[in-house]
Amino acid sequence: MIEYHGYHGGQVYLAEYLFTRLYQVGVRSVHGVPGDYNLTSLDFIEPAGLHWVGNANELNAGYAADGYGRINGISALVTAFGVGELSALNAIGGAFAERVPVVHVVGTPATHAQNSQSILHHSLGDGNFRVFARIYKDFTCAQANLTNPKTAPEEIDRVILQCLKQSRPVYIELPTDLVKAKVYSHRLNQSLKVLLIENCPNIEEDLIKELCQRIQNTRRPSFIVDGFTRQADMLEEMNKFIYITGYPTYVTPSGKGRVNESFPNFRGTYMGSVGKDVHVEWVNSCDLVIRFGPLDADTNTYGFTTLTNRKITIDINETSINMQGVLYDNLNTKILLQKLFAMVYHLGRSSLLEPYPKLGNPRRDRIQSLLPPMEDGLIEQKTFWTRISDFLKPNDVILTETGTPSSGGQDLILPPATTMINSAIWLSIGYTLAASVGVALAQRDLVAEKKRPEGRTIVFQGDGSFQMTAQSISDVFRNRLNLTIFLINNDGYTIERHIHGMTAGYNDVHPWNYLDAPHFFGAPEDYPVFTRRVVNWGELRDVMKEKQLIEGKGFNMVEVVMGQQDAPESLRGLVRLVCERDGEWEEY
Amino acid sequence: MIEYHGYHGGQVYLAEYLFTRLYQVGVRSVHGVPGDYNLTSLDFIEPAGLHWVGNANELNAGYAADGYGRINGISALVTAFGVGELSALNAIGGAFAERVPVVHVVGTPATHAQNSQSILHHSLGDGNFRVFARIYKDFTCAQANLTNPKTAPEEIDRVILQCLKQSRPVYIELPTDLVKAKVYSHRLNQSLKVLLIENCPNIEEDLIKELCQRIQNTRRPSFIVDGFTRQADMLEEMNKFIYITGYPTYVTPSGKGRVNESFPNFRGTYMGSVGKDVHVEWVNSCDLVIRFGPLDADTNTYGFTTLTNRKITIDINETSINMQGVLYDNLNTKILLQKLFAMVYHLGRSSLLEPYPKLGNPRRDRIQSLLPPMEDGLIEQKTFWTRISDFLKPNDVILTETGTPSSGGQDLILPPATTMINSAIWLSIGYTLAASVGVALAQRDLVAEKKRPEGRTIVFQGDGSFQMTAQSISDVFRNRLNLTIFLINNDGYTIERHIHGMTAGYNDVHPWNYLDAPHFFGAPEDYPVFTRRVVNWGELRDVMKEKQLIEGKGFNMVEVVMGQQDAPESLRGLVRLVCERDGEWEEY
Repeated sequence: MIEYHGYHGGQVYLAEYLFTRLYQVGVRSVHGVPGDYNLTSLDFIEPAGLHWVGNANELNAGYAADGYGRINGISALVTAFGVGELSALNAIGGAFAERVPVVHVVGTPATHAQNSQSILHHSLGDGNFRVFARIYKDFTCAQANLTNPKTAPEEIDRVILQCLKQSRPVYIELPTDLVKAKVYSHRLNQSLKVLLIENCPNIEEDLIKELCQRIQNTRRPSFIVDGFTRQADMLEEMNKFIYITGYPTYVTPSGKGRVNESFPNFRGTYMGSVGKDVHVEWVNSCDLVIRFGPLDADTNTYGFTTLTNRKITIDINETSINMQGVLYDNLNTKILLQKLFAMVYHLGRSSLLEPYPKLGNPRRDRIQSLLPPMEDGLIEQKTFWTRISDFLKPNDVILTETGTPSSGGQDLILPPATTMINSAIWLSIGYTLAASVGVALAQRDLVAEKKRPEGRTIVFQGDGSFQMTAQSISDVFRNRLNLTIFLINNDGYTIERHIHGMTAGYNDVHPWNYLDAPHFFGAPEDYPVFTRRVVNWGELRDVMKEKQLIEGKGFNMVEVVMGQQDAPESLRGLVRLVCERDGEWEEY
Repeated sequence: MIEYHGYHGGQVYLAEYLFTRLYQVGVRSVHGVPGDYNLTSLDFIEPAGLHWVGNANELNAGYAADGYGRINGISALVTAFGVGELSALNAIGGAFAERVPVVHVVGTPATHAQNSQSILHHSLGDGNFRVFARIYKDFTCAQANLTNPKTAPEEIDRVILQCLKQSRPVYIELPTDLVKAKVYSHRLNQSLKVLLIENCPNIEEDLIKELCQRIQNTRRPSFIVDGFTRQADMLEEMNKFIYITGYPTYVTPSGKGRVNESFPNFRGTYMGSVGKDVHVEWVNSCDLVIRFGPLDADTNTYGFTTLTNRKITIDINETSINMQGVLYDNLNTKILLQKLFAMVYHLGRSSLLEPYPKLGNPRRDRIQSLLPPMEDGLIEQKTFWTRISDFLKPNDVILTETGTPSSGGQDLILPPATTMINSAIWLSIGYTLAASVGVALAQRDLVAEKKRPEGRTIVFQGDGSFQMTAQSISDVFRNRLNLTIFLINNDGYTIERHIHGMTAGYNDVHPWNYLDAPHFFGAPEDYPVFTRRVVNWGELRDVMKEKQLIEGKGFNMVEVVMGQQDAPESLRGLVRLVCERDGEWEEY
């Protein structure tokens, strides 16, 4: 953290305070779009040591801020009042639902204009300036309207702290006439951190004792690792715990990538009714299931078929533990896990364990059993994901878009230290491409400060979703980021086809010349660009040997042509379970 | 209107009822994006005689629906629940602020899933399914949640009627399990029309008498025609009235195009402090100012400097008249104007009229005084708009994007029967390109039924705003529309530069190869495409002679290169008046 000795007792501009605070908590790049009511505040971004991203539109900026937040731990977004913030709302909704820390700063009209209910542009013309902030209350965990220079620093600190603590977006209104208001700077000398509050010793002791006992006495245990573990920052403790016990461990679609898949007890994604019976039989016969960071959305639980009997289930969340139906709240589970781990490590595994069914490691078995593909065989969903796994390397961040990639991506065999981003409940099509811009930026910012080893950003994207947020490519070039896109061109919204309307015209998209993107969006001349279209296994194998693709520098785009109706088996099953009760799904 | 004899006493599917009603009130094309929760309803679009547009994303779909609604009188938009509808919100906000009739249909989860508060995808995961509808309440004038087949037809009729009556967006939730619910069809035999309710005879008589008297006794009158005249459908009466009295007539930025500019008493756009003193002096010395459909936003009134003394001002709105501070509400002003016109026609002009200052017709004078431009002279904002006016023809619809086009467009000399769309208060950058897709579609749909003569759709667009919604071009190709784009490439957000940060990096945009758009977005091979980049007056003159451009068929795009800081004089003035009180504007 940079020390701000200059601030002792002095005063700074309000915008200076805000952006300095954002820098202090780890933001290095600020996403957003300039617009009336936020312009003067933008003057304070670069002086605070921050980089202005300058996205092509607000929705893409919001998605990118989400991607940045997931990797960096916090991100910032600046939009204009009214029009700008509404365009970003879907992205902030996703960050709220999936718990991503984004600080959204909105430049609003001057307080005197708001107070006099002027009919200003970017408003609804009814003199009501609170309507947008009211909306954002449903999508952010804390809000501040900086109308008072005396309280503004405290207000800023309060919402940023909530952003970090709850790992959810927050909303800050900055009226134009307050941008250069003078505020006291002394708070900047104190760093803004979420304190690791100790647990009440008695409760903690009891809980650890009880958890330990259950772990000691289990005959048939399983772990299920889910998506809300990232926010809880419990990945390290959890992985140690999983490794040391050796108990069978599954992930969910949103938990994919949170467990080291090279552990011998890694069992792959638990798919309930969509997966193999042997897994369901095993899990249902367990006497202990510990779920880490569960997110029980229909799409993340294969139509709720992965839910386990509450009587044998322990949920470990960021701030609570649900022990077989009894909720222990206001906990620091990170500390608790550390202590539990020490004890379990000391005591060893349960001595009562029954032998597990012989499943081996399904992912490893699978790749070994794959025959070399036919050179001119068309690329199929069924084996694509396992085969492309060879391309992945430690420290890569892999994003899989809603559609065939989000289901197929569950078949990826992830090397250790890879990160995966797979939307678990919001599923807003178009999210992933734009989010990958933020991910690439976060990787660069963290590598620059040696807080993270170098790794590639790789996004698996569909053609329909690509079209939604295509101008994100322009943001890649403007910021000279390193990004690799596998664009699965299957001629339309294939996931929708499998829900309803397999051959319906409304599930078609207009065919673009996708590989023309670097030229259209203005790739800089001195910037490495690689594009290739592949239609069969031979071409895919060849492209995976390309040096630039392996290094992942510059902009790389591989258009992978697949069948219009081809979908991973697990997607078909998911769609059937999730949509048939809505009457949307139809047997075909 | 198509007669639905088959519906006597019978039953139809709910979705069938909905889309049939939309057809009956004049919708021919339905904008939107397919998604989970709306797919089964899409099956009923084509059978109802409607065309599915299939936009590339929801924001663009919303903007296009706005454009369609402005030309067609009503439009429809279908999105998915949560993610889809949030992405469209900014567009619906604009339609609400600027009074455009859009029926927004949202496919929502099945009622039983909503009632049981399931954690479904596209929701926030908190079991609250009302959050999105609650938001839409602030942006629509009527809402219906179709959960009951018995009341659904009446509910649909109620909101569509409000959409027509108030000329504002409405919101319909259609749960998946209701799509195929059987509903009674008998209401379909009765057409859905906003009845022209007669005014109370006594009030009407008094009002006409008083208006007539004032018009008879004025010495120094003016008319100011504003944007909320389109919604009131009073254009014909108003134009007759303006012509017959011969009183000096101004427009506002949003009223531009509503008056026949070939009338000798047309005086151009009234710009208050931004325009010439002679106009301000004249208007301020008037003893009668009649304003038609006023929209008193800061940007539409040049920082409120065009507002006139209430004591001499009469505002004629769709359903009310404000006579020098006294409001007469619940009127049908269309009928009232018809009667007033008859009386004024009979009585003739005021005999007390003083001579007007000799201003002639400033627009006509201006074009005649323009010297032929230098062949290789760079294209400048100052004269571009007057010069390009030669290109315009009757029945064209011209859209001018927020930025230099919205201000410069006020200098266009419009032939009779042209229509102009210029955002007056919402000013969401990116709106116009996407809206032009809906305009082009509305023109085609209306021409097909001989309800409108053939005309071109011409959009003047900036480079920064183009980037926001560029994938609208894909919608043009998918629907094989006729669209002509003048893309003013001035290397960034020039309007923002004039507000604040003339040379700041945040006002830059990444340079694209704009004319590559037809190739990237997949223009069909058998579809006419014309593109040209022009940098000087000679090239502009040459391009205006191109046959395809003159005819306006297919896709035409002219990239007009202008100076980065070049802006119409009126934009500089507007920005100064609107933004200096916010402290954003800076002398440069």
